[in-house]
Amino acid sequence: MSSLLIRNIKTIYGINEHYGGIKSGTAMSQVSTLEDGFLLAEYGQIKAYGAMVDCPDRADVVVDADGGHLLPGWCDSHTHLVFATSREEEFVYRLKGMTYEEIAEKGGGILNSARKLGLMDEEELYEASATRLEKAIRSGTTAIEIKSGYGLTLESELKMLRVIRRLKESYPVAIKATFLGAHAFPMEYRNDRQGYIRLITETMIPQIVHEGLADYIDVFVTKGFTVEETDEILKAGMRYGLKAKIHANELANSGGVQVGIENGAVSVDHLEQIGSEEIEALKKSKTIPTILPSCSYFLDIPYAPARTMIDAGLGVCLATDFNPGTSPSANIPLLLSLACTQMKMLPEEAFNAITVNGACAMEVENIYGSIAIGKMASLIITREIPSFAYIPYSFGENHIKQVIVKGKLIN
Amino acid sequence: MSSLLIRNIKTIYGINEHYGGIKSGTAMSQVSTLEDGFLLAEYGQIKAYGAMVDCPDRADVVVDADGGHLLPGWCDSHTHLVFATSREEEFVYRLKGMTYEEIAEKGGGILNSARKLGLMDEEELYEASATRLEKAIRSGTTAIEIKSGYGLTLESELKMLRVIRRLKESYPVAIKATFLGAHAFPMEYRNDRQGYIRLITETMIPQIVHEGLADYIDVFVTKGFTVEETDEILKAGMRYGLKAKIHANELANSGGVQVGIENGAVSVDHLEQIGSEEIEALKKSKTIPTILPSCSYFLDIPYAPARTMIDAGLGVCLATDFNPGTSPSANIPLLLSLACTQMKMLPEEAFNAITVNGACAMEVENIYGSIAIGKMASLIITREIPSFAYIPYSFGENHIKQVIVKGKLIN
Repeated sequence: MSSLLIRNIKTIYGINEHYGGIKSGTAMSQVSTLEDGFLLAEYGQIKAYGAMVDCPDRADVVVDADGGHLLPGWCDSHTHLVFATSREEEFVYRLKGMTYEEIAEKGGGILNSARKLGLMDEEELYEASATRLEKAIRSGTTAIEIKSGYGLTLESELKMLRVIRRLKESYPVAIKATFLGAHAFPMEYRNDRQGYIRLITETMIPQIVHEGLADYIDVFVTKGFTVEETDEILKAGMRYGLKAKIHANELANSGGVQVGIENGAVSVDHLEQIGSEEIEALKKSKTIPTILPSCSYFLDIPYAPARTMIDAGLGVCLATDFNPGTSPSANIPLLLSLACTQMKMLPEEAFNAITVNGACAMEVENIYGSIAIGKMASLIITREIPSFAYIPYSFGENHIKQVIVKGKLIN
Repeated sequence: MSSLLIRNIKTIYGINEHYGGIKSGTAMSQVSTLEDGFLLAEYGQIKAYGAMVDCPDRADVVVDADGGHLLPGWCDSHTHLVFATSREEEFVYRLKGMTYEEIAEKGGGILNSARKLGLMDEEELYEASATRLEKAIRSGTTAIEIKSGYGLTLESELKMLRVIRRLKESYPVAIKATFLGAHAFPMEYRNDRQGYIRLITETMIPQIVHEGLADYIDVFVTKGFTVEETDEILKAGMRYGLKAKIHANELANSGGVQVGIENGAVSVDHLEQIGSEEIEALKKSKTIPTILPSCSYFLDIPYAPARTMIDAGLGVCLATDFNPGTSPSANIPLLLSLACTQMKMLPEEAFNAITVNGACAMEVENIYGSIAIGKMASLIITREIPSFAYIPYSFGENHIKQVIVKGKLIN
């Protein structure tokens, strides 16, 4: 079956033939739409779309949108989807008054995930991760970035990245792999930071690149690694052809944004703490600022000042940060609700941030992130809802009726 | 088919044979459980439960919980589920900087809902409301309170309450109807407050009670009505046999709690603004404090100080406040997540607040709100999740596999 026709679409939402991201704050609220339309896919790509009066007669598969809206699939550019198990016990510790840092001190946090992952074999880790990925796909995510970083040994980092490679081979969505050996210092390197950095730069990076396991390199700046250490690790990655995507300014404004920009990072992510200096630097750079409101919600920490950033003229990206410690949710409609209710983004801005700008933050904007001829027919048909704004408004509701990946219906 | 057997339950959660609510703060974190169990229902009621080793051989219908947990159905004691249409356009106005009060001034808010509802015929209103109720039931809500208050004329208030009566007759869940004529002053009574109060007390209440349409009377204290006006309206209701459940202290600490307690209110709801005086008064009373975190989330206003209330020794109730203006969500798992992440309630406290204490706030605790012999077999079977705490932890996920209402499976 090579062609798929979607008929009776209430609104085709997110038409953007420019094949690029939205760099300007003002343009963030612009979304091109077409009412009462059809879309035709051939061989997995968007072949045509237009008004119902011009709808083709036939196709191998015909779907009636029944008055639902058609959206491009979500592009989730920051996740830690490969992990061993959930960590709700630490969540309860926090509710009882312990801080995230105190839990980490006691061997919880990232090191807890690393210990659990070390004990799990690759097959089991693949199965658990595949189940999570399938759930995300059924919820409309059709391009996703996944990080390592719960390994923290050569063996375990390779295990995670091989699992991500198997996911890439097994699922028809876009997947980008990021090497995050510099997620935290393992216990045994507590007093030998430079030793762990050497392990990353001299052993892990060469072997990972040799096996072709990573697209990007990431460093958790300031929570674990200083700006200088970050610079050293990023430059080592870049020598092997890995571009940077980094964790910056979650808990303090510490130069993370600047070191990212200086190293030509594709994105700098988190930004809960960011000032006008960083905003101006980002405006002049090609680096994409990526905001993770689910993490702020879950940890009950400040949200990134998305409104200030956009009003200052800066386009932004949204992502879930899906991970078991600080954002145990891959639910994009809820992410959009958080972006609007808690950060005062407009629904259109939140939409652009999780589609076209998410695609840019994974460098797949030429084939994902908008409705455009030649882009992948990886799409969402919504239930019958009054408008796109209804999605962030009616939080907790299931708005998605049908997901299409490369021209094929997903149940 | 008169008997239903549920086998292979990982944990029966929320066993409570006391048939009463939890008044004390300390007891809020106590939940009785039984591992690896079965439950037998006969004629819609819980007949027996126990360990799998004692599981009966047969029943008319047998369900395998497959390692899921068994919970009593949610008891949602504060909703405005009967309304004409969603109001996402006002949500966008707020995001653009208008306050809820400014929107109300322009004829938005409650008066907007009232205008829309006035134009809708009873049949259409019933259909829209029934669809919403079915969605809530499929999500595990098996006892629910529904308010009028988008009528604000005799005719429209009667229309709403008749719709609630039809829902009561048509669905096998517990439904309580609350008359909320005193939700807001209609435009035409802006300069004749006493005139509208007379309409409520002398015309609406007698006719509503004559038709047997309401169980409770509610007043929106302070946002619309003063403490003195509230007292007058509640006393008028009580003369006709309607007990009070009121909206108190959403935007200011204004005596709403006290006037509720003085009039023997079953519950005082909202409580975003509450001090130690009110907490002490509530501890001495039978009135249930009901907290609505979805409203705080959606309006981005302070949350009720649930942690302070519980630590001061006060048991609390949670409810959704489901309505199109300030809480467009009937999703209970998400409500539990808000209660834990934003108000630092423990998962067990949130569970008791939305089950046994929710049942108390609707005076159905003798047959709803816990797993107990003789109570209604209105139950939730969860998916295979590690523990109850996983529900508030993994926000936005669908945790519910099967809902049972009075011993019957709901798809």
